Amino acid sequence: MQAGGKTEKVPETILAAMRQTNELFAVEVVAKGDVAVLDRIYTAAARILPPGTPMIAGREQIKSFWKQAVAAMGVQSAKLSSDYVEASGDAIIEIGHADLGLVNGKSVSVKYVVQWKQEDGSWKWNIDIWNTNE
Amino acid sequence: MQAGGKTEKVPETILAAMRQTNELFAVEVVAKGDVAVLDRIYTAAARILPPGTPMIAGREQIKSFWKQAVAAMGVQSAKLSSDYVEASGDAIIEIGHADLGLVNGKSVSVKYVVQWKQEDGSWKWNIDIWNTNE
Repeated sequence: MQAGGKTEKVPETILAAMRQTNELFAVEVVAKGDVAVLDRIYTAAARILPPGTPMIAGREQIKSFWKQAVAAMGVQSAKLSSDYVEASGDAIIEIGHADLGLVNGKSVSVKYVVQWKQEDGSWKWNIDIWNTNE
Repeated sequence: MQAGGKTEKVPETILAAMRQTNELFAVEVVAKGDVAVLDRIYTAAARILPPGTPMIAGREQIKSFWKQAVAAMGVQSAKLSSDYVEASGDAIIEIGHADLGLVNGKSVSVKYVVQWKQEDGSWKWNIDIWNTNE
């Protein structure tokens, strides 16, 4: 703890890298259904905490989750927006929200907290938890 | 970012302080309904992301939320358990779960992610998001 830095603003270059990762999720995973791309989005040891199911740990398990979740929820589009981003040590905390477009024409509003970490030179989701507003 | 430390183990003294904060929540807020104690649990600028409602920012707003939520949910007991704790810079990330006992005799399982920060010498919840397993 004592060696750790203080909370800091996140440089624009990193914010841009984060937007790129979020865009990958929206375009490749949600719109195209390509869960292999999750290798570039989640760290190998990532944990997700989805509503309605216990925590899921590990990227392969996370791929299985999203494969069935995108189909089961009928999500065909996602727009992710950051509301608050802060760096602390080697991690970044993001609070954001997502607007999900469903195949039935309805939309769902989701808010989330993501802890980001750098892996293989990319910023990825290491802890990911969300819930709905309604 | 560059000044920040790496992810580190959390010393036992801090883990003990965290358990104390969690215990305050269970005993004083949930069991006794004393939301004034939330001053010692949340940072002044804390944000909570409860299921079913948009994000709530600021401790006074958080007090109003818990006052009505504890009553509305009929929660009479809470047992908070840490599943994963990691320090990064001046923050700590905790993944945990809570078993909530309801007045109707049923129980609800909740999992959560909390970002902890130190304020006035105490470790407090700075970002708090949760959802249910069912």
